[in-house]
Amino acid sequence: MRRSKLFTKTTKNLPADETSRNAQLLIQAGFIHKEMAGVYAYLPLGLRVIERIKAIVREEMNAIGGEELIMSSLQPKELWETTGRWDDEVVDVWFKSALKNGTEVGFGWSHEEAIVETMKQYVSSYKDLPAYAYQFQTKLRNELRAKSGIMRGREFVMKDMYSCSTDADQHEAFYQATIEAYNRVFERVGIGSDTYVTFASGGAFTQFSHEFQTICDAGEDIIYLHRGKNIAVNEEVSDDATLAKLGIARDELEKVKTAEVGNIFNFGTQKSEDMDFAFTNEQGEKQFVHLGSYGIGITRLMGVVAEKFADDKGLVWPLALAPCTVYLASLGTDAKVVAEADRLYDLLTDRGVSVLYDDRDVRPGQKFADAELMGIPYRVVVSEKTLAAGRFEFQPRVGGEPQQLTEDALLQNVVSPSQ
Amino acid sequence: MRRSKLFTKTTKNLPADETSRNAQLLIQAGFIHKEMAGVYAYLPLGLRVIERIKAIVREEMNAIGGEELIMSSLQPKELWETTGRWDDEVVDVWFKSALKNGTEVGFGWSHEEAIVETMKQYVSSYKDLPAYAYQFQTKLRNELRAKSGIMRGREFVMKDMYSCSTDADQHEAFYQATIEAYNRVFERVGIGSDTYVTFASGGAFTQFSHEFQTICDAGEDIIYLHRGKNIAVNEEVSDDATLAKLGIARDELEKVKTAEVGNIFNFGTQKSEDMDFAFTNEQGEKQFVHLGSYGIGITRLMGVVAEKFADDKGLVWPLALAPCTVYLASLGTDAKVVAEADRLYDLLTDRGVSVLYDDRDVRPGQKFADAELMGIPYRVVVSEKTLAAGRFEFQPRVGGEPQQLTEDALLQNVVSPSQ
Repeated sequence: MRRSKLFTKTTKNLPADETSRNAQLLIQAGFIHKEMAGVYAYLPLGLRVIERIKAIVREEMNAIGGEELIMSSLQPKELWETTGRWDDEVVDVWFKSALKNGTEVGFGWSHEEAIVETMKQYVSSYKDLPAYAYQFQTKLRNELRAKSGIMRGREFVMKDMYSCSTDADQHEAFYQATIEAYNRVFERVGIGSDTYVTFASGGAFTQFSHEFQTICDAGEDIIYLHRGKNIAVNEEVSDDATLAKLGIARDELEKVKTAEVGNIFNFGTQKSEDMDFAFTNEQGEKQFVHLGSYGIGITRLMGVVAEKFADDKGLVWPLALAPCTVYLASLGTDAKVVAEADRLYDLLTDRGVSVLYDDRDVRPGQKFADAELMGIPYRVVVSEKTLAAGRFEFQPRVGGEPQQLTEDALLQNVVSPSQ
Repeated sequence: MRRSKLFTKTTKNLPADETSRNAQLLIQAGFIHKEMAGVYAYLPLGLRVIERIKAIVREEMNAIGGEELIMSSLQPKELWETTGRWDDEVVDVWFKSALKNGTEVGFGWSHEEAIVETMKQYVSSYKDLPAYAYQFQTKLRNELRAKSGIMRGREFVMKDMYSCSTDADQHEAFYQATIEAYNRVFERVGIGSDTYVTFASGGAFTQFSHEFQTICDAGEDIIYLHRGKNIAVNEEVSDDATLAKLGIARDELEKVKTAEVGNIFNFGTQKSEDMDFAFTNEQGEKQFVHLGSYGIGITRLMGVVAEKFADDKGLVWPLALAPCTVYLASLGTDAKVVAEADRLYDLLTDRGVSVLYDDRDVRPGQKFADAELMGIPYRVVVSEKTLAAGRFEFQPRVGGEPQQLTEDALLQNVVSPSQ
């Protein structure tokens, strides 16, 4: 991708009406555009980050048997009345509107009821179970406030998965498989060591649900963490009884601010009973399906990664999420320099390395500042000086000084690098 | 993909409340689920078809310089008031709702104003132009009626692209490049020979826009077609003056029913003037940007392909759009047959062939009927008979009798086959 062809620009100016660090940086770097409070467009570089996160999540969900589909934003009132969740007193984040004939419709803030209604068409026997469906859906939520940038918006992308199982054992096996899959996701996107499976509020069926909480100063949650035993408890359930049950003492716990990047929930058969989602078992008896739901906030995850790794120079993307691996800067307009930079761009692109090639006629300082602000993992410079030395200048975004590398050495660093 | 793991099922029953052929077949085959009138969920096989269409469109848009982004569904009132298009008297398909503080919001039925507002942040000089942005967006339109299945829904996926150019010449060059790119898209998805660039209503700036109309009995449009001169005119502009201007006589024209799968539109500088989208030219003068918009209905295209190619046995997918290339059916439960089918499944999958493997313990007739209903291009059968002969039974979905093939011959037919 050539900068000269990319329509977005960077800016040094802080966006006027934006207090969240993730949105400030992402706007300054040209990754997102604010459309209204809590609503952002994802520009070419921002969309690439989202797609990289989705690809990782998709791989891990498919690996445990998830089947991808896509539900609708428009939701019928009757469906949500079956569980009492159409009522604004029960769910306070609905956006609602009406068809021309007056029929009320809602916009999906969740898709639990919709997925169950869909699965009902296909599940009638124990032979049809288990079944695991997931989607990447744009959720619309009428949040009272929206001040955390892309970490909590009125419109955001979520991966939501639902499991349909014959009984508690079959449910539990998938629930555990999902915990492991989620751990792999967070490991791969670079926040594994700071993300904790956390005990949180359950529902009618279970005492606890599980959240995946990532240590992050910009987060909206508080957890209590026992690093030694690797146990984390959301503040909301951190009463003495819970701590005793988990075998941890209050004075051993560390209080940390976190952002919830994922959650998993065991519905038991409550929702199935509300919606009459049943199957016939081997004995010919009617049984209600055991349901679980499993979310990962895709755009929130992007925001958390932006917040966590940014430094005073700008964004810092982990290799697995970066929109490009290499920021290639040609310095000056000397024809030989341009030809050499063009050649390297083609060479790297041919080897499957994604390159943001700053081929603009702007001063070197601006190119370096942009490379840093955008957080591209590796900066490579071609200049008259490097050309004369038969080298390329290579520098990682964090933790490394500029090195003068031969072409072979450069390729070793940027073709299929490990994190 | 194993049928035993796929949660969807086929059904012989026609859906009760569905009159459109595309939706009937797609529901029967388990590709889509109707959530409400004009609103469908895309189940695993249906989503695969959408993603294949999107991949083709994305390739062709990138090839002409398009940059992909994604705007939001939520739209602010003030933005659309700048062009007078917030008014329900002007635009009668808005879904609208309100934030908690009473601020009205709309849901994107189009994104012209939103994209222009975004591009305004980045375009100030002639050096910033041209710029071409596109997205795959879920559009919400409050249609009075929704009776054409996925060919006209209240919620649908559209690729919409916008071009920003310095002047009429720069605009025209991209407009022509897009016509060629669209022709390649429709060729690749299998409807090229039945799709016509069609003169249609223009706007304040141009006499005509151009639609891409595909011959389809289920379509909602009428065009007049001059096959000899390869000229098509939408009924709405087929007056004597237009025909004279195009050099065609009414009695040479064929009247055909069509579906609009794409359209392209030259706004000139009208919208830019309304929204003050300007740049400074080489002489330092303020100029308004020339705008164009370019749409392809992704889900509609899927519906048109479903309608056009279906036969009395079910769907027929062109190879380029099929959710899987091969429907592999094992007949009976003999251990050797199962082992051989498993082996072939792994072999084909390893070679990059996508296979829907019917490994269920159901009678052969049901497997054959499903393969036909789902419209998978090639059916391969493994049975005690084929095993004894050291062959596989191979049959294309259309236009071919069953053949008994060796493994090598089978691979030649299904690995990287041409359409």
